[in-house]
Amino acid sequence: MKKKKKVNAAILIIGNEILSGRTQDKNIAFISNWLNTNCGISVFEVRIIPDVEKIIVKNIRFLSKQFDYVFTTGGIGPTHDDITALSIAKAFKVKYGYHKEAFKILESYYGEKKFNDGRKKMAKMPITAKLIYNPSSAAPGFITKNVFSLPGVPSILNSMIENCKRYLVKGLKVHSKTINLFTVESNISKQLGLIQNKYKKFVDIGSYPFFRLGKIGVSIVSRSTSKIKLKKVSKDLMKVIKSKKIKVLKI
Amino acid sequence: MKKKKKVNAAILIIGNEILSGRTQDKNIAFISNWLNTNCGISVFEVRIIPDVEKIIVKNIRFLSKQFDYVFTTGGIGPTHDDITALSIAKAFKVKYGYHKEAFKILESYYGEKKFNDGRKKMAKMPITAKLIYNPSSAAPGFITKNVFSLPGVPSILNSMIENCKRYLVKGLKVHSKTINLFTVESNISKQLGLIQNKYKKFVDIGSYPFFRLGKIGVSIVSRSTSKIKLKKVSKDLMKVIKSKKIKVLKI
Repeated sequence: MKKKKKVNAAILIIGNEILSGRTQDKNIAFISNWLNTNCGISVFEVRIIPDVEKIIVKNIRFLSKQFDYVFTTGGIGPTHDDITALSIAKAFKVKYGYHKEAFKILESYYGEKKFNDGRKKMAKMPITAKLIYNPSSAAPGFITKNVFSLPGVPSILNSMIENCKRYLVKGLKVHSKTINLFTVESNISKQLGLIQNKYKKFVDIGSYPFFRLGKIGVSIVSRSTSKIKLKKVSKDLMKVIKSKKIKVLKI
Repeated sequence: MKKKKKVNAAILIIGNEILSGRTQDKNIAFISNWLNTNCGISVFEVRIIPDVEKIIVKNIRFLSKQFDYVFTTGGIGPTHDDITALSIAKAFKVKYGYHKEAFKILESYYGEKKFNDGRKKMAKMPITAKLIYNPSSAAPGFITKNVFSLPGVPSILNSMIENCKRYLVKGLKVHSKTINLFTVESNISKQLGLIQNKYKKFVDIGSYPFFRLGKIGVSIVSRSTSKIKLKKVSKDLMKVIKSKKIKVLKI
């Protein structure tokens, strides 16, 4: 059996509405979680950029070289501000035009009479792209080299993501273990640092303050591709927690 | 009176918990909205990166050159994974150590006995940084050159952001006008494109599909620093909407 290795990805959110703060992004957390849980792929970088061709081209070129996969969201609809497909074609210097299969899918979905220019635009993309089928509104996403282009509307994106799976090389899943404590970070920061140092090659330990039921708490999140190492870290953490008589939250 | 010009900014979210999808980011939309509404500053790029020194240093250098201001969130607490301050000092090759005023603030907040090493760490930063006062939990943010460093916890960040204002050069505010329609994008994409083209130097028109009350709709968002141009665009849009007998949503 071929041993799995670490596989990484970047997410490129294309859209003025997210940048301006008008719309709260929901796709980053969804894609990142999905990639790790279903494919063992870790997102290493996210960028949010405006609907500007030059900027999209530059970012696509950079990220597609830097990471195993790139996932773009937004800019693949029928309006003038939907320029993702054209920009990707330019980034990779591949031909942009009607994608035969996408055209057929959309033509049959809308019927010949209702298949107007706006809708036809959604069939325009790198003509050699692989399609990501869209069970909710027909207009497909597409794959150009290692770049997966999905729509910006979360419900549509969510319905399509499973169709990316067969094109992805699976990597090592990152497992995580969270311990929620009623304490403050500075009470355990020294010991946490020592434990992180002991396991630095295998486990990433993060510490995140929270407020709950009017009390201050800390979530200690350990992440690793090794479940065994994760257990060892938890054991070490529990020793510290007991010695300091810190209350652990069940949920 | 000096004429205001366009001022831009980037946001750099530092934190594995956002990248992994474990935590839903709330700071991007908040900062971007606040900057535009209160300071006339537009966010042009957002990046989310892991807690890795080399990566933070590289991004700080790049973004601080590229944009008028950079806002970082996360990584300024007391634990081992809080490496934003040290990384920024390295990025700008400035001295990192106890910041005298920050040290005093934290010492007086915690009292001498409870001012342990973890808490002291929160006074470590570029020693010449300007402080961003923190009314909710004392530990200050800081400004290094054009980089503003804020904490990752949204409620604390929100309480501090007003204290950034006096260090920011104000720019031209971007006004926006949203028209919500019960129609599909492809029904108006051609006309939208023509209107966008007519005003391309002054107004950005975006089109965003939504689902509400079981119906499909489109939000047309026009954005401009000129209220007059914005009104003209709205007038043109309303002409199209009326001619196509599209229903406009009041809210």
